Amino acid sequence: MAGKLIVFEGIEGCGKTTQIQQIQPWLADRLSLNHSSGGKLHQRGVQVTREPGGTQLGQHLRDLLLHHDIREPLSDRSELLLYAADRAQHIETLIKPLLDQGTIILCDRFTDSTLAYQGYGRGLDLQQIHQINQIATGGVVPDLTLWLNVPVEAGLTRIKARKKVDRIEQADLEFHYRVAEGFATLAKMYPQRIVPIDGNGDRDRVTQQIQNILNQKLLEWGLISNNYGCV
Amino acid sequence: MAGKLIVFEGIEGCGKTTQIQQIQPWLADRLSLNHSSGGKLHQRGVQVTREPGGTQLGQHLRDLLLHHDIREPLSDRSELLLYAADRAQHIETLIKPLLDQGTIILCDRFTDSTLAYQGYGRGLDLQQIHQINQIATGGVVPDLTLWLNVPVEAGLTRIKARKKVDRIEQADLEFHYRVAEGFATLAKMYPQRIVPIDGNGDRDRVTQQIQNILNQKLLEWGLISNNYGCV
Repeated sequence: MAGKLIVFEGIEGCGKTTQIQQIQPWLADRLSLNHSSGGKLHQRGVQVTREPGGTQLGQHLRDLLLHHDIREPLSDRSELLLYAADRAQHIETLIKPLLDQGTIILCDRFTDSTLAYQGYGRGLDLQQIHQINQIATGGVVPDLTLWLNVPVEAGLTRIKARKKVDRIEQADLEFHYRVAEGFATLAKMYPQRIVPIDGNGDRDRVTQQIQNILNQKLLEWGLISNNYGCV
Repeated sequence: MAGKLIVFEGIEGCGKTTQIQQIQPWLADRLSLNHSSGGKLHQRGVQVTREPGGTQLGQHLRDLLLHHDIREPLSDRSELLLYAADRAQHIETLIKPLLDQGTIILCDRFTDSTLAYQGYGRGLDLQQIHQINQIATGGVVPDLTLWLNVPVEAGLTRIKARKKVDRIEQADLEFHYRVAEGFATLAKMYPQRIVPIDGNGDRDRVTQQIQNILNQKLLEWGLISNNYGCV
């Protein structure tokens, strides 16, 4: 049975990475619990990955995109195409093979980030970004996108507490507002695909919201049964 | 007055790089000679550049594309998008500013290489490559493309004489045949834009052919006059 691609999206400091770390062992347990009660042989894996940087090439590109010390300014279209190159490699060498193995993938950012940052944030043509996303993904779309919605100021306050701030995080406040507005617009445009999560406040409360959504989706996908029995 | 973008295209070992080195000083002299006889103040520069690798970012990408030691295979679509990212940066930070200054640019590879290598060579969808070329260039098209046509075996024999052979040059013979066929097809499809040059044989004879074409074009563009006088 094919795996599932679950994407976590949101602005800087929205808590995606922390939540993914919380969710991965919970989800592995959840599927294993279901599995052991049913006695099936195949254990379904849960794998965490991210964009940019989910592959070896991607790690090089992530360094170029976020921490590079090139003196010339990075052009907006070049930035867009580098994220797309990272994604194409990610899809081909990691995501597709894992989906074929039946793995549940938790991915930190995907195509909606490109629309929010390069489209709404930088002002590049949205239709062109859709075209490039289509080429980069080869048509792979997330089975579920969780959008962690937090106010821009709250997110930026969180990341300022970190040691090192990257190139994107350093951008001006107006840019971050446009990105946040972009995610909100996308969530309104694609309500079937994007589930908003209130990411503000207590970490465990946010985790609980995500677990509720995932329980519902796992059931819908036939990966768990209502009474925790085997499906 | 706007500059001109002159592109040199062809398979591995076709002699592009050598010919560009021959042509640059000749062209600078040719324009300077014309200039001095007319007494104009503005000296039109002749600049050599290349893809990939015409910018600082591009140099990093060139290393990734041609000499990278990443163990995972580079996906065809990722390769396509990395060339496009290199091109977008090249256009924005180098080619457009130089054209605005009136510079004559001699560029080693451009969009036709992407069609020939990634399209005809790797078998990626030509329409998608056209879309990506359009996004990467922002609509900039070469004023002249010189296609140095040499037999595949002759080109490969030349590059085997070099010390270090890169990732593309190492590809199998069938790939190089498809690329060569791609350039031939493009030259037939766009006869107004692509001028074929017989690149086989004596280096100086090839240079002479290119100089004849360029003399004709410089005249057509109004950059020289027939009698070497000022225009």
